[in-house]
Amino acid sequence: MPAAYPEKFKDLVDKKSFAHLGTLMPDGSPQVTPVWWDFDGTHILVNSARGRQKDKNMRRDPRVSFEVSDPDNPYRHMEIRGRVVEITEEGARDHIDKMAKKYMGLDKYPLRKADEVRVLYKIAIDHAQTMG
Amino acid sequence: MPAAYPEKFKDLVDKKSFAHLGTLMPDGSPQVTPVWWDFDGTHILVNSARGRQKDKNMRRDPRVSFEVSDPDNPYRHMEIRGRVVEITEEGARDHIDKMAKKYMGLDKYPLRKADEVRVLYKIAIDHAQTMG
Repeated sequence: MPAAYPEKFKDLVDKKSFAHLGTLMPDGSPQVTPVWWDFDGTHILVNSARGRQKDKNMRRDPRVSFEVSDPDNPYRHMEIRGRVVEITEEGARDHIDKMAKKYMGLDKYPLRKADEVRVLYKIAIDHAQTMG
Repeated sequence: MPAAYPEKFKDLVDKKSFAHLGTLMPDGSPQVTPVWWDFDGTHILVNSARGRQKDKNMRRDPRVSFEVSDPDNPYRHMEIRGRVVEITEEGARDHIDKMAKKYMGLDKYPLRKADEVRVLYKIAIDHAQTMG
């Protein structure tokens, strides 16, 4: 049951809006963390690093949910539920630099650790709901 | 394995900080929605209304996660995982008015529908993690 990205919330893609990503822990309980996010026209993209809790969670169970609020109006928000359909390291470093540009105004992501392997997750949208 | 509310994040209780609450859908997938929140010294309190998706989710499976970011600094945030240990309608209307005061500066919650039954959820903290 694929769903589309909500047209009237396209403006949030270019704003410094944080997504709050829900994944599933090994015991099936939820975990929520804030993430930078992006939209490629089809999939929602998030970026993490190999070995982090959300990386392990999305590899084990692809079901995710996330909520994004308009930084200019917290009562305007969308919730998207979907599935991780691709996990790749290809392009993940370029993508985190793109996110550093969007969120921090920097050309290079400044927080990367030497041994960190960036990972890109592509999320298919199954359900989208908006408020405001 | 009860855990304590992170002492150095007590300031977030009085700020207009939104929590992003993760609950579990009937099929076990996560759902994330923004909520007003409160802390009573022991439990995290959230307020919803009877019949909403998150109400149904928390009655079915008490496991929740939520993340709160500092509205003055999105890179300072905490994640709490826990369990709903009490669901009650007692005091829920007074509590939503208290939240309207905190978040909107109003004495009465202005958005209540005539047939809406407010519900208060008390969440025990099992795990707390902070960043920033």
